[in-house]
Amino acid sequence: MTDLPQHPPETVAAPYRVSVLTMFPEAFPGPLGVSVLGNAQKESGLWTLEPVDIRTFSSDKRGFLDDTPAGGGPGQVLKADVIAKALDSLGADDRPKVYMSARGRRLTQDKVREWSKASGLIVLCGRFEGVDQRVLDARGFEEISVGDAVLAGGESAAMVTIEAVVRLIPGVLGAAESLDTESFEDGLLEHPQYTRPRTFEGLDIPEVLLSGDHKKMAAWKQKQREATTKERRPDLWAAYLSKSQAKGAPKAE
Amino acid sequence: MTDLPQHPPETVAAPYRVSVLTMFPEAFPGPLGVSVLGNAQKESGLWTLEPVDIRTFSSDKRGFLDDTPAGGGPGQVLKADVIAKALDSLGADDRPKVYMSARGRRLTQDKVREWSKASGLIVLCGRFEGVDQRVLDARGFEEISVGDAVLAGGESAAMVTIEAVVRLIPGVLGAAESLDTESFEDGLLEHPQYTRPRTFEGLDIPEVLLSGDHKKMAAWKQKQREATTKERRPDLWAAYLSKSQAKGAPKAE
Repeated sequence: MTDLPQHPPETVAAPYRVSVLTMFPEAFPGPLGVSVLGNAQKESGLWTLEPVDIRTFSSDKRGFLDDTPAGGGPGQVLKADVIAKALDSLGADDRPKVYMSARGRRLTQDKVREWSKASGLIVLCGRFEGVDQRVLDARGFEEISVGDAVLAGGESAAMVTIEAVVRLIPGVLGAAESLDTESFEDGLLEHPQYTRPRTFEGLDIPEVLLSGDHKKMAAWKQKQREATTKERRPDLWAAYLSKSQAKGAPKAE
Repeated sequence: MTDLPQHPPETVAAPYRVSVLTMFPEAFPGPLGVSVLGNAQKESGLWTLEPVDIRTFSSDKRGFLDDTPAGGGPGQVLKADVIAKALDSLGADDRPKVYMSARGRRLTQDKVREWSKASGLIVLCGRFEGVDQRVLDARGFEEISVGDAVLAGGESAAMVTIEAVVRLIPGVLGAAESLDTESFEDGLLEHPQYTRPRTFEGLDIPEVLLSGDHKKMAAWKQKQREATTKERRPDLWAAYLSKSQAKGAPKAE
């Protein structure tokens, strides 16, 4: 024992651990292996990606993973025990569990931010007509949908989800400031972007952006953001308006 | 000349042609190369996937693809002339053009269906702070967003989009009937699925699905679909209700 002040133990953050349960591990890493996400994995060791092959967890002598839906209907359903075994192979685990499903709630930036603060993420990719609901309920999977379109399987949606989460891990993106003024972060879509040359195929960069008048430019950008959001995403626009009003901001028309 | 009836010339449909403009062609095919989509490409020749490397179309001696945003702000913007050159390398082309963008309208199954009826699709993947707006306007790109989350680039969103479109090409999916009763196709989410065994970790398959009473089962499934949609996707539920009312169907509560 000593009465010298104790330094807290040095903590080295463990890499953010992403496990993907899939019938097609060969689909990965795809976009998760390139650019900043690829570098953050291979060079900086900030996160790991581990595809887990569901096909190796059949409890059936014949290696079946799926069976016909209870109550009839087309297609096949992934068996609960197969998914449970694949999941249990990861060991005791308190990471959030996500099932990519057309039946799910929408993926949102709020969800993405929440998951990025955990120690990692477990993502289940379905195929066929889906997964036996009981393993989703028993193991606490959140059902999440990406886009309102029907997919052949969960893998591409998993990539969107994982990419959105991993880019928020501290250190993954170079310029921290580019996290700030982004679509969805404050409820408005971004303004359009332009760069050199001044004229492209007869189209000019909007005059105001060349004026050097920072106040005017900021006002122009804000106006563009509002107009684009109103036109393309009436749902976000309505949410933005009610949020502004709750804050006592001047009422937008 | 002969007066014998002429047979119409035999038409062999050309494969559905997907071109992807990307800075990371190595991210492809990913999920687009596996399972039914992979087979439809490699075995049946129903579609082709052609990643086009934007990096080879710099018009700059130093090979730059991007420049700082007009009017200031963080990050870099992909240059209009680079994208135009990459696009023009595909030749004269009337395929729909899609730019994956957080500023875009939502991807919907209606859009997906429309694109699946064209001869193919051109998909542009952005990086950095985006693409110079003038090339999008001049070349008629539709800006489309997948999920309300911010991504590092357009590649994973492109995969979601392409997967949704390609699976609708006739012959890609085996069982045509599984196209019918799907989430989003009629505005409601799907009912939960179950399969053998009857009991999994103490949870039973809902009794009604084992009853063999087709009328009861259909009613249960419909009820589940409505309840899930109402809870998880109030936006789809509202749209479904107003559509049902327009058709003169009994008013749902």
